[in-house]
Amino acid sequence: MKIAVVGVGLIGGSMMLKLRQRALASYVFGIDKNERHLQEALQLNIIDEAADLEKGIENADLIIIAIPVDSTRVLLPEILDKISENQTVMDVGSTKSGITEAIKTHKKRNRFVAFHPMWGTENSGPKSASADSFSGRAAVICDKEDSAPDALKTVEKIAEYLEMNLLYMTAEDHDIHTAYISHISHITSYALANTVLEKEREEDTIFQLASSGFSSTVRLAKSHPEMWVPIFKQNKENVLDVLNEHITQLRKFKSALEKENYDLLEQLILNANRIRPILENKS
Amino acid sequence: MKIAVVGVGLIGGSMMLKLRQRALASYVFGIDKNERHLQEALQLNIIDEAADLEKGIENADLIIIAIPVDSTRVLLPEILDKISENQTVMDVGSTKSGITEAIKTHKKRNRFVAFHPMWGTENSGPKSASADSFSGRAAVICDKEDSAPDALKTVEKIAEYLEMNLLYMTAEDHDIHTAYISHISHITSYALANTVLEKEREEDTIFQLASSGFSSTVRLAKSHPEMWVPIFKQNKENVLDVLNEHITQLRKFKSALEKENYDLLEQLILNANRIRPILENKS
Repeated sequence: MKIAVVGVGLIGGSMMLKLRQRALASYVFGIDKNERHLQEALQLNIIDEAADLEKGIENADLIIIAIPVDSTRVLLPEILDKISENQTVMDVGSTKSGITEAIKTHKKRNRFVAFHPMWGTENSGPKSASADSFSGRAAVICDKEDSAPDALKTVEKIAEYLEMNLLYMTAEDHDIHTAYISHISHITSYALANTVLEKEREEDTIFQLASSGFSSTVRLAKSHPEMWVPIFKQNKENVLDVLNEHITQLRKFKSALEKENYDLLEQLILNANRIRPILENKS
Repeated sequence: MKIAVVGVGLIGGSMMLKLRQRALASYVFGIDKNERHLQEALQLNIIDEAADLEKGIENADLIIIAIPVDSTRVLLPEILDKISENQTVMDVGSTKSGITEAIKTHKKRNRFVAFHPMWGTENSGPKSASADSFSGRAAVICDKEDSAPDALKTVEKIAEYLEMNLLYMTAEDHDIHTAYISHISHITSYALANTVLEKEREEDTIFQLASSGFSSTVRLAKSHPEMWVPIFKQNKENVLDVLNEHITQLRKFKSALEKENYDLLEQLILNANRIRPILENKS
Protein backbone atom coordinates (compact mmCIF):
# COMPACT_ATOMS: atom_id res chain seq x y z
CA MET A 1 0.00 0.00 0.00
CA LYS A 2 1.33 3.43 -0.98
CA ILE A 3 0.74 5.99 1.75
CA ALA A 4 0.92 9.78 1.79
CA VAL A 5 1.27 11.10 5.33
CA VAL A 6 0.45 14.77 5.85
CA GLY A 7 2.40 15.71 8.97
CA VAL A 8 5.50 13.67 9.82
CA GLY A 9 5.46 14.42 13.56
CA LEU A 10 4.98 12.24 16.62
CA ILE A 11 1.78 10.49 15.48
CA GLY A 12 2.30 10.34 11.70
CA GLY A 13 5.94 9.38 12.24
CA SER A 14 5.20 6.62 14.75
CA MET A 15 2.54 5.15 12.46
CA MET A 16 4.86 5.09 9.46
CA LEU A 17 7.69 3.45 11.43
CA LYS A 18 5.37 0.60 12.42
CA LEU A 19 3.63 0.20 9.05
CA ARG A 20 6.98 0.12 7.23
CA GLN A 21 8.46 -2.30 9.77
CA ARG A 22 5.51 -4.62 9.19
CA ALA A 23 5.69 -4.07 5.40
CA LEU A 24 2.13 -2.82 5.05
CA ALA A 25 3.44 0.48 3.70
CA SER A 26 5.32 -0.22 0.46
CA TYR A 27 6.15 3.43 -0.19
CA VAL A 28 5.60 6.55 1.92
CA PHE A 29 5.33 10.14 0.67
CA GLY A 30 5.96 12.61 3.48
CA ILE A 31 4.25 16.00 3.34
CA ASP A 32 5.00 18.72 5.87
CA LYS A 33 5.24 22.50 5.97
CA ASN A 34 8.25 22.08 8.27
CA GLU A 35 11.27 21.42 6.04
CA ARG A 36 13.46 20.37 8.96
CA HIS A 37 10.92 17.75 10.02
CA LEU A 38 10.85 16.39 6.46
CA GLN A 39 14.64 16.01 6.47
CA GLU A 40 14.57 14.35 9.88
CA ALA A 41 11.79 12.00 8.72
CA LEU A 42 13.93 10.99 5.71
CA GLN A 43 16.95 10.35 7.91
CA LEU A 44 14.90 8.33 10.40
CA ASN A 45 13.41 6.16 7.62
CA ILE A 46 9.93 7.38 8.47
CA ILE A 47 9.29 8.29 4.82
CA ASP A 48 10.73 7.31 1.42
CA GLU A 49 10.31 10.69 -0.20
CA ALA A 50 9.56 14.27 0.76
CA ALA A 51 6.74 15.40 -1.50
CA ASP A 52 4.14 18.12 -1.96
CA LEU A 53 0.45 17.44 -1.39
CA GLU A 54 -0.30 17.14 -5.13
CA LYS A 55 2.29 14.43 -5.66
CA GLY A 56 1.12 12.58 -2.57
CA ILE A 57 -2.51 12.63 -3.67
CA GLU A 58 -1.56 11.62 -7.20
CA ASN A 59 0.29 8.49 -6.10
CA ALA A 60 -1.03 7.21 -2.76
CA ASP A 61 -3.70 4.60 -2.05
CA LEU A 62 -4.17 6.03 1.43
CA ILE A 63 -3.76 9.61 2.64
CA ILE A 64 -3.27 10.03 6.38
CA ILE A 65 -3.79 13.49 7.84
CA ALA A 66 -1.74 13.85 11.03
CA ILE A 67 -1.75 17.59 11.75
CA PRO A 68 -3.55 19.77 14.34
CA VAL A 69 -7.34 19.43 14.18
CA ASP A 70 -7.99 22.99 12.99
CA SER A 71 -5.73 22.48 9.97
CA THR A 72 -7.35 19.10 9.30
CA ARG A 73 -10.75 20.76 9.18
CA VAL A 74 -9.51 23.09 6.43
CA LEU A 75 -7.40 20.60 4.51
CA LEU A 76 -9.71 17.57 4.51
CA PRO A 77 -12.37 18.99 2.12
CA GLU A 78 -9.60 20.13 -0.28
CA ILE A 79 -8.09 16.66 -0.31
CA LEU A 80 -11.48 15.01 -0.86
CA ASP A 81 -12.01 17.35 -3.83
CA LYS A 82 -8.89 15.98 -5.47
CA ILE A 83 -8.94 12.24 -4.81
CA SER A 84 -10.43 9.47 -6.93
CA GLU A 85 -13.03 6.89 -5.86
CA ASN A 86 -10.22 4.38 -5.29
CA GLN A 87 -8.41 6.37 -2.69
CA THR A 88 -8.99 6.51 1.07
CA VAL A 89 -8.42 9.42 3.46
CA MET A 90 -8.13 9.11 7.25
CA ASP A 91 -7.27 11.48 10.07
CA VAL A 92 -5.80 10.80 13.52
CA GLY A 93 -7.23 13.78 15.42
CA SER A 94 -8.40 14.02 19.01
CA THR A 95 -11.75 15.69 18.14
CA LYS A 96 -14.18 14.37 15.57
CA SER A 97 -17.48 16.31 15.39
CA GLY A 98 -15.91 19.43 13.88
CA ILE A 99 -14.12 17.45 11.21
CA THR A 100 -17.04 15.22 10.21
CA GLU A 101 -19.34 18.27 10.21
CA ALA A 102 -17.03 20.06 7.75
CA ILE A 103 -17.45 17.32 5.13
CA LYS A 104 -21.00 16.18 5.94
CA THR A 105 -22.35 17.06 2.51
CA HIS A 106 -19.15 16.45 0.52
CA LYS A 107 -19.84 14.10 -2.38
CA LYS A 108 -16.78 12.03 -1.50
CA ARG A 109 -17.56 11.88 2.24
CA ASN A 110 -17.56 8.08 2.04
CA ARG A 111 -13.86 7.99 1.08
CA PHE A 112 -13.00 9.38 4.55
CA VAL A 113 -12.64 7.37 7.75
CA ALA A 114 -12.48 9.23 11.07
CA PHE A 115 -9.77 7.53 13.16
CA HIS A 116 -8.32 8.32 16.57
CA PRO A 117 -5.43 6.33 18.04
CA MET A 118 -5.53 6.91 21.81
CA TRP A 119 -1.84 7.50 22.35
CA GLY A 120 0.40 10.52 22.51
CA THR A 121 3.15 12.07 24.58
CA GLU A 122 4.10 15.56 25.64
CA ASN A 123 6.74 15.56 22.89
CA SER A 124 6.45 16.34 19.20
CA GLY A 125 8.27 16.02 15.90
CA PRO A 126 9.66 13.01 14.00
CA LYS A 127 12.49 12.53 16.48
CA SER A 128 9.90 11.64 19.15
CA ALA A 129 8.34 8.93 16.95
CA SER A 130 8.66 5.26 17.87
CA ALA A 131 7.32 2.15 16.16
CA ASP A 132 5.66 0.38 19.08
CA SER A 133 3.86 3.34 20.61
CA PHE A 134 0.41 2.18 19.57
CA SER A 135 0.58 -1.52 20.42
CA GLY A 136 -2.14 -2.66 22.79
CA ARG A 137 -3.79 0.77 23.00
CA ALA A 138 -7.31 1.77 22.00
CA ALA A 139 -8.22 3.27 18.63
CA VAL A 140 -11.62 4.66 17.75
CA ILE A 141 -13.36 4.76 14.36
CA CYS A 142 -16.25 7.21 14.27
CA ASP A 143 -19.44 7.13 12.20
CA LYS A 144 -18.33 4.06 10.28
CA GLU A 145 -21.61 3.89 8.35
CA ASP A 146 -20.64 7.14 6.62
CA SER A 147 -17.54 5.49 5.10
CA ALA A 148 -17.45 3.16 2.09
CA PRO A 149 -16.91 -0.51 3.07
CA ASP A 150 -13.55 -0.74 1.27
CA ALA A 151 -12.31 2.53 2.83
CA LEU A 152 -13.36 1.26 6.26
CA LYS A 153 -11.58 -2.05 5.62
CA THR A 154 -8.37 -0.21 4.70
CA VAL A 155 -8.36 1.73 7.96
CA GLU A 156 -9.25 -1.36 10.00
CA LYS A 157 -6.21 -3.00 8.44
CA ILE A 158 -4.06 -0.05 9.52
CA ALA A 159 -5.35 -0.44 13.09
CA GLU A 160 -4.64 -4.17 12.96
CA TYR A 161 -1.06 -3.64 11.79
CA LEU A 162 -0.58 -0.98 14.49
CA GLU A 163 -1.77 -3.69 16.94
CA MET A 164 -4.49 -1.46 18.38
CA ASN A 165 -7.80 -2.43 20.00
CA LEU A 166 -10.50 -0.99 17.77
CA LEU A 167 -13.70 0.59 19.10
CA TYR A 168 -16.57 2.10 17.13
CA MET A 169 -18.73 5.03 18.17
CA THR A 170 -20.36 8.19 16.84
CA ALA A 171 -18.25 11.34 16.47
CA GLU A 172 -20.49 12.96 19.07
CA ASP A 173 -19.94 10.21 21.66
CA HIS A 174 -16.23 10.20 20.90
CA ASP A 175 -15.94 13.90 21.68
CA ILE A 176 -17.79 13.49 24.97
CA HIS A 177 -15.62 10.55 26.07
CA THR A 178 -12.31 12.17 25.05
CA ALA A 179 -13.27 15.33 26.96
CA TYR A 180 -13.53 13.18 30.12
CA ILE A 181 -10.65 10.83 29.55
CA SER A 182 -8.09 12.91 27.72
CA HIS A 183 -8.79 16.61 27.30
CA ILE A 184 -9.49 17.41 30.95
CA SER A 185 -6.21 15.74 31.98
CA HIS A 186 -4.35 18.27 29.88
CA ILE A 187 -6.15 21.26 31.37
CA THR A 188 -5.57 19.91 34.88
CA SER A 189 -1.91 19.45 34.15
CA TYR A 190 -1.50 22.91 32.56
CA ALA A 191 -3.29 24.52 35.51
CA LEU A 192 -1.14 22.59 37.98
CA ALA A 193 2.03 23.78 36.25
CA ASN A 194 0.75 27.37 36.33
CA THR A 195 -0.14 26.98 40.02
CA VAL A 196 3.33 25.82 40.93
CA LEU A 197 5.01 28.44 38.74
CA GLU A 198 2.87 31.12 40.39
CA LYS A 199 3.39 29.97 43.98
CA GLU A 200 6.90 28.58 43.88
CA ARG A 201 9.06 31.40 42.61
CA GLU A 202 12.30 29.53 43.22
CA GLU A 203 12.73 27.47 40.06
CA ASP A 204 15.72 25.66 41.55
CA THR A 205 13.50 24.41 44.37
CA ILE A 206 10.98 23.02 41.88
CA PHE A 207 13.75 21.17 40.09
CA GLN A 208 15.39 19.90 43.27
CA LEU A 209 12.24 18.78 45.04
CA ALA A 210 10.14 17.56 42.12
CA SER A 211 9.07 14.08 43.11
CA SER A 212 8.06 11.35 40.70
CA GLY A 213 4.44 12.06 41.64
CA PHE A 214 4.66 15.72 40.67
CA SER A 215 6.50 14.94 37.43
CA SER A 216 3.85 12.41 36.52
CA THR A 217 0.92 14.73 37.19
CA VAL A 218 2.50 17.70 35.42
CA ARG A 219 3.94 15.79 32.46
CA LEU A 220 1.16 16.73 30.04
CA ALA A 221 1.74 20.42 30.78
CA LYS A 222 4.71 20.23 28.43
CA SER A 223 2.35 19.67 25.47
CA HIS A 224 2.34 22.32 22.74
CA PRO A 225 -0.46 24.88 22.25
CA GLU A 226 -0.42 24.38 18.44
CA MET A 227 -1.95 20.98 19.00
CA TRP A 228 -4.09 21.64 22.07
CA VAL A 229 -5.73 25.04 21.50
CA PRO A 230 -7.54 23.69 18.39
CA ILE A 231 -8.67 20.59 20.32
CA PHE A 232 -10.13 22.66 23.16
CA LYS A 233 -11.71 24.98 20.60
CA GLN A 234 -13.38 22.18 18.63
CA ASN A 235 -14.52 20.39 21.78
CA LYS A 236 -15.40 23.51 23.75
CA GLU A 237 -18.84 22.52 25.08
CA ASN A 238 -17.78 19.09 26.33
CA VAL A 239 -14.53 20.38 27.81
CA LEU A 240 -16.35 23.19 29.64
CA ASP A 241 -18.87 20.72 31.00
CA VAL A 242 -16.20 18.47 32.47
CA LEU A 243 -14.05 21.43 33.59
CA ASN A 244 -16.98 22.76 35.62
CA GLU A 245 -17.38 19.36 37.25
CA HIS A 246 -13.64 19.27 37.99
CA ILE A 247 -13.76 22.66 39.72
CA THR A 248 -16.75 21.42 41.72
CA GLN A 249 -14.78 18.34 42.80
CA LEU A 250 -11.79 20.46 43.85
CA ARG A 251 -14.12 22.69 45.86
CA LYS A 252 -15.25 19.63 47.80
CA PHE A 253 -11.65 19.01 48.87
CA LYS A 254 -11.31 22.68 49.74
CA SER A 255 -14.49 22.66 51.80
CA ALA A 256 -13.53 19.45 53.64
CA LEU A 257 -10.16 20.98 54.56
CA GLU A 258 -11.58 24.38 55.54
CA LYS A 259 -14.20 22.77 57.77
CA GLU A 260 -11.68 20.23 59.06
CA ASN A 261 -14.13 17.54 58.03
CA TYR A 262 -11.59 14.73 57.72
CA ASP A 263 -14.27 12.07 57.41
CA LEU A 264 -15.50 13.77 54.25
CA LEU A 265 -11.90 14.11 53.03
CA GLU A 266 -11.43 10.38 53.53
CA GLN A 267 -14.67 9.65 51.65
CA LEU A 268 -13.52 11.81 48.73
CA ILE A 269 -10.23 9.95 48.59
CA LEU A 270 -11.85 6.52 48.92
CA ASN A 271 -14.16 7.43 46.04
CA ALA A 272 -11.15 8.45 43.92
CA ASN A 273 -9.44 5.16 44.79
CA ARG A 274 -12.19 3.41 42.80
CA ILE A 275 -10.27 4.43 39.67
CA ARG A 276 -7.63 1.76 40.39
CA PRO A 277 -9.69 -1.40 39.70
CA ILE A 278 -11.32 0.34 36.73
CA LEU A 279 -7.98 1.21 35.13
CA GLU A 280 -6.70 -2.27 35.90
CA ASN A 281 -10.04 -3.75 34.73
CA LYS A 282 -10.67 -5.66 37.94
CA SER A 283 -14.00 -5.62 39.70
CA MET B 1 24.46 -0.45 62.31
CA LYS B 2 21.47 -2.12 63.93
CA ILE B 3 18.20 -0.60 62.74
CA ALA B 4 14.66 -0.84 64.05
CA VAL B 5 12.14 0.14 61.39
CA VAL B 6 8.66 1.01 62.58
CA GLY B 7 6.44 0.36 59.54
CA VAL B 8 7.68 -2.17 56.97
CA GLY B 9 5.67 -0.74 54.04
CA LEU B 10 6.69 0.89 50.78
CA ILE B 11 9.09 3.46 52.25
CA GLY B 12 10.49 1.57 55.24
CA GLY B 13 10.76 -1.58 53.14
CA SER B 14 12.53 0.10 50.23
CA MET B 15 15.02 1.75 52.59
CA MET B 16 15.85 -1.53 54.32
CA LEU B 17 16.33 -3.39 51.03
CA LYS B 18 18.90 -0.81 49.95
CA LEU B 19 20.67 -0.44 53.31
CA ARG B 20 20.98 -4.22 53.65
CA GLN B 21 22.16 -4.61 50.07
CA ARG B 22 24.87 -2.03 50.76
CA ALA B 23 25.67 -3.62 54.13
CA LEU B 24 25.06 -0.48 56.16
CA ALA B 25 22.31 -2.27 58.08
CA SER B 26 23.88 -5.21 59.94
CA TYR B 27 20.61 -6.30 61.56
CA VAL B 28 17.04 -5.07 61.09
CA PHE B 29 14.18 -5.34 63.59
CA GLY B 30 10.82 -4.92 61.86
CA ILE B 31 7.94 -3.47 63.85
CA ASP B 32 4.43 -3.26 62.41
CA LYS B 33 0.84 -3.52 63.63
CA ASN B 34 0.08 -5.45 60.44
CA GLU B 35 1.11 -9.08 61.05
CA ARG B 36 0.80 -10.01 57.37
CA HIS B 37 3.15 -7.19 56.39
CA LEU B 38 5.68 -8.44 58.97
CA GLN B 39 5.57 -11.95 57.49
CA GLU B 40 5.93 -10.57 53.96
CA ALA B 41 8.84 -8.38 55.06
CA LEU B 42 10.60 -11.46 56.52
CA GLN B 43 10.05 -13.42 53.32
CA LEU B 44 11.29 -10.56 51.17
CA ASN B 45 14.45 -10.17 53.29
CA ILE B 46 13.45 -6.66 54.24
CA ILE B 47 13.96 -7.43 57.94
CA ASP B 48 15.88 -10.02 59.99
CA GLU B 49 13.36 -10.29 62.77
CA ALA B 50 9.79 -9.32 63.54
CA ALA B 51 9.88 -7.56 66.89
CA ASP B 52 7.84 -5.39 69.20
CA LEU B 53 8.70 -1.74 69.79
CA GLU B 54 10.39 -2.44 73.15
CA LYS B 55 12.79 -4.99 71.69
CA GLY B 56 13.55 -2.70 68.76
CA ILE B 57 14.32 0.24 71.03
CA GLU B 58 16.39 -1.96 73.34
CA ASN B 59 18.69 -3.18 70.58
CA ALA B 60 18.86 -0.68 67.69
CA ASP B 61 21.36 2.10 67.07
CA LEU B 62 18.88 3.83 64.79
CA ILE B 63 15.08 3.80 64.93
CA ILE B 64 13.32 4.75 61.69
CA ILE B 65 9.65 5.72 61.90
CA ALA B 66 7.96 5.00 58.56
CA ILE B 67 4.24 5.20 59.33
CA PRO B 68 1.52 7.80 58.56
CA VAL B 69 2.37 11.27 59.92
CA ASP B 70 -0.45 11.35 62.47
CA SER B 71 0.81 8.13 64.08
CA THR B 72 4.38 9.45 63.98
CA ARG B 73 3.28 12.52 65.90
CA VAL B 74 1.93 10.31 68.69
CA LEU B 75 4.67 7.67 68.68
CA LEU B 76 7.76 9.87 68.37
CA PRO B 77 7.59 11.41 71.90
CA GLU B 78 7.03 7.93 73.37
CA ILE B 79 10.10 6.58 71.58
CA LEU B 80 12.22 9.56 72.66
CA ASP B 81 11.14 8.89 76.26
CA LYS B 82 12.63 5.41 76.07
CA ILE B 83 15.88 5.77 74.12
CA SER B 84 19.37 6.42 75.48
CA GLU B 85 21.68 9.27 74.52
CA ASN B 86 23.51 6.94 72.13
CA GLN B 87 20.51 6.19 69.95
CA THR B 88 19.13 8.15 67.00
CA VAL B 89 15.53 8.44 65.79
CA MET B 90 14.47 9.60 62.32
CA ASP B 91 11.17 9.81 60.46
CA VAL B 92 10.42 9.75 56.73
CA GLY B 93 7.16 11.72 56.69
CA SER B 94 5.82 14.16 54.12
CA THR B 95 4.99 16.90 56.68
CA LYS B 96 7.39 18.23 59.27
CA SER B 97 6.07 21.17 61.31
CA GLY B 98 3.49 19.10 63.20
CA ILE B 99 6.06 16.48 64.14
CA THR B 100 8.84 18.85 65.20
CA GLU B 101 6.27 20.91 67.13
CA ALA B 102 5.19 17.82 69.08
CA ILE B 103 8.71 17.28 70.48
CA LYS B 104 9.90 20.90 70.61
CA THR B 105 10.45 20.85 74.38
CA HIS B 106 11.31 17.16 74.73
CA LYS B 107 14.58 16.77 76.62
CA LYS B 108 15.85 14.28 73.99
CA ARG B 109 14.77 16.42 71.00
CA ASN B 110 18.36 16.43 69.77
CA ARG B 111 18.34 12.62 69.25
CA PHE B 112 15.74 13.09 66.49
CA VAL B 113 16.44 14.00 62.86
CA ALA B 114 13.53 15.06 60.62
CA PHE B 115 14.06 13.37 57.24
CA HIS B 116 11.94 13.28 54.08
CA PRO B 117 12.93 11.18 51.08
CA MET B 118 11.08 12.68 48.07
CA TRP B 119 9.90 9.46 46.54
CA GLY B 120 6.76 7.38 46.72
CA THR B 121 4.26 5.57 44.54
CA GLU B 122 0.54 5.01 44.60
CA ASN B 123 1.19 1.53 46.00
CA SER B 124 1.80 0.42 49.57
CA GLY B 125 3.03 -2.53 51.62
CA PRO B 126 6.33 -4.46 51.66
CA LYS B 127 5.55 -6.14 48.33
CA SER B 128 5.77 -2.72 46.64
CA ALA B 129 9.23 -2.03 48.07
CA SER B 130 12.28 -1.92 45.82
CA ALA B 131 15.93 -1.27 46.60
CA ASP B 132 16.76 1.40 44.04
CA SER B 133 13.69 3.60 44.45
CA PHE B 134 15.56 6.43 46.14
CA SER B 135 18.68 6.66 43.97
CA GLY B 136 19.23 10.10 42.51
CA ARG B 137 16.18 11.64 44.17
CA ALA B 138 16.02 14.51 46.65
CA ALA B 139 15.90 14.05 50.41
CA VAL B 140 15.34 16.84 52.89
CA ILE B 141 16.65 17.19 56.45
CA CYS B 142 14.74 19.80 58.46
CA ASP B 143 15.92 21.98 61.35
CA LYS B 144 19.31 20.29 61.46
CA GLU B 145 20.55 22.63 64.24
CA ASP B 146 18.02 20.99 66.57
CA SER B 147 19.71 17.60 66.17
CA ALA B 148 22.91 16.44 67.88
CA PRO B 149 25.91 16.38 65.49
CA ASP B 150 26.33 12.60 65.75
CA ALA B 151 22.60 11.96 65.17
CA LEU B 152 22.71 14.24 62.12
CA LYS B 153 25.79 12.42 60.83
CA THR B 154 24.02 9.05 61.15
CA VAL B 155 21.07 10.23 59.05
CA GLU B 156 23.35 11.88 56.49
CA LYS B 157 25.05 8.52 56.13
CA ILE B 158 21.66 6.86 55.55
CA ALA B 159 20.93 9.41 52.78
CA GLU B 160 24.36 8.77 51.27
CA TYR B 161 23.84 5.01 51.19
CA LEU B 162 20.38 5.52 49.69
CA GLU B 163 22.18 7.59 47.00
CA MET B 164 19.94 10.60 47.56
CA ASN B 165 20.67 14.29 47.00
CA LEU B 166 20.45 15.93 50.38
CA LEU B 167 18.89 19.37 50.96
CA TYR B 168 18.53 21.26 54.24
CA MET B 169 15.71 23.60 55.19
CA THR B 170 13.44 24.55 58.09
CA ALA B 171 10.38 22.40 58.81
CA GLU B 172 8.25 25.42 57.98
CA ASP B 173 9.82 25.92 54.54
CA HIS B 174 9.66 22.19 53.87
CA ASP B 175 5.91 22.14 54.45
CA ILE B 176 5.36 25.10 52.14
CA HIS B 177 7.43 23.56 49.34
CA THR B 178 5.89 20.08 49.63
CA ALA B 179 2.40 21.63 49.50
CA TYR B 180 3.33 23.08 46.09
CA ILE B 181 5.37 20.25 44.69
CA SER B 182 3.76 17.15 46.12
CA HIS B 183 0.56 17.55 48.11
CA ILE B 184 -1.38 19.56 45.52
CA SER B 185 -0.59 16.93 42.84
CA HIS B 186 -2.42 14.38 44.93
CA ILE B 187 -5.50 16.56 45.41
CA THR B 188 -5.56 17.34 41.68
CA SER B 189 -5.32 13.69 40.86
CA TYR B 190 -8.02 12.65 43.35
CA ALA B 191 -10.34 15.37 42.05
CA LEU B 192 -9.68 14.33 38.46
CA ALA B 193 -10.56 10.73 39.26
CA ASN B 194 -13.76 11.87 40.99
CA THR B 195 -14.60 14.08 37.99
CA VAL B 196 -14.26 11.22 35.55
CA LEU B 197 -16.13 8.80 37.82
CA GLU B 198 -18.93 11.36 38.15
CA LYS B 199 -19.19 12.23 34.45
CA GLU B 200 -18.31 8.94 32.81
CA ARG B 201 -20.74 6.43 34.18
CA GLU B 202 -19.61 3.66 31.82
CA GLU B 203 -16.64 2.13 33.60
CA ASP B 204 -15.83 -0.06 30.61
CA THR B 205 -15.40 3.06 28.51
CA ILE B 206 -12.93 4.51 31.02
CA PHE B 207 -10.91 1.32 30.89
CA GLN B 208 -11.05 0.99 27.13
CA LEU B 209 -10.26 4.59 26.28
CA ALA B 210 -7.84 5.49 29.08
CA SER B 211 -4.82 6.92 27.31
CA SER B 212 -1.32 7.02 28.72
CA GLY B 213 -1.89 10.72 29.42
CA PHE B 214 -4.95 10.08 31.55
CA SER B 215 -3.31 7.19 33.40
CA SER B 216 -0.32 9.36 34.16
CA THR B 217 -2.35 12.27 35.49
CA VAL B 218 -4.68 10.10 37.54
CA ARG B 219 -2.04 7.69 38.88
CA LEU B 220 -1.72 9.35 42.28
CA ALA B 221 -5.49 9.02 42.81
CA LYS B 222 -4.84 5.39 43.71
CA SER B 223 -2.98 6.49 46.89
CA HIS B 224 -4.49 5.43 50.21
CA PRO B 225 -6.35 7.80 52.58
CA GLU B 226 -4.55 6.34 55.65
CA MET B 227 -1.40 8.04 54.43
CA TRP B 228 -2.84 11.15 52.81
CA VAL B 229 -5.60 12.40 55.12
CA PRO B 230 -3.03 12.94 57.94
CA ILE B 231 -0.69 14.77 55.54
CA PHE B 232 -3.43 17.14 54.38
CA LYS B 233 -4.49 17.60 57.99
CA GLN B 234 -1.01 18.47 59.23
CA ASN B 235 -0.31 20.75 56.27
CA LYS B 236 -3.80 22.24 56.05
CA GLU B 237 -2.92 25.94 55.75
CA ASN B 238 -0.31 25.50 53.03
CA VAL B 239 -2.41 23.01 51.10
CA LEU B 240 -5.46 25.32 51.20
CA ASP B 241 -3.32 28.20 50.00
CA VAL B 242 -2.07 26.33 46.95
CA LEU B 243 -5.48 24.69 46.34
CA ASN B 244 -7.07 28.14 46.12
CA GLU B 245 -4.45 29.17 43.59
CA HIS B 246 -5.08 26.00 41.61
CA ILE B 247 -8.83 26.68 41.43
CA THR B 248 -8.01 30.23 40.30
CA GLN B 249 -5.77 28.86 37.54
CA LEU B 250 -8.47 26.43 36.37
CA ARG B 251 -10.96 29.31 36.30
CA LYS B 252 -8.68 31.13 33.88
CA PHE B 253 -8.91 28.21 31.48
CA LYS B 254 -12.67 28.14 31.97
CA SER B 255 -12.99 31.85 31.30
CA ALA B 256 -10.77 31.71 28.20
CA LEU B 257 -12.93 28.91 26.79
CA GLU B 258 -16.25 30.52 27.72
CA LYS B 259 -15.23 33.81 26.14
CA GLU B 260 -13.65 31.99 23.19
CA ASN B 261 -10.47 33.93 23.93
CA TYR B 262 -8.06 31.51 22.27
CA ASP B 263 -5.16 33.95 22.49
CA LEU B 264 -5.48 33.88 26.26
CA LEU B 265 -5.79 30.09 26.16
CA GLU B 266 -2.56 29.92 24.17
CA GLN B 267 -0.84 32.22 26.67
CA LEU B 268 -1.95 30.02 29.58
CA ILE B 269 -0.57 26.96 27.83
CA LEU B 270 2.69 28.66 26.86
CA ASN B 271 3.13 29.70 30.47
CA ALA B 272 2.56 26.11 31.62
CA ASN B 273 5.11 24.91 29.04
CA ARG B 274 7.78 26.75 31.09
CA ILE B 275 7.69 23.79 33.47
CA ARG B 276 9.59 21.65 30.92
CA PRO B 277 13.02 23.37 31.06
CA ILE B 278 12.66 23.73 34.84
CA LEU B 279 12.01 20.02 35.37
CA GLU B 280 14.80 19.18 32.93
CA ASN B 281 17.01 21.86 34.58
CA LYS B 282 17.73 23.68 31.34
CA SER B 283 17.50 27.43 31.05
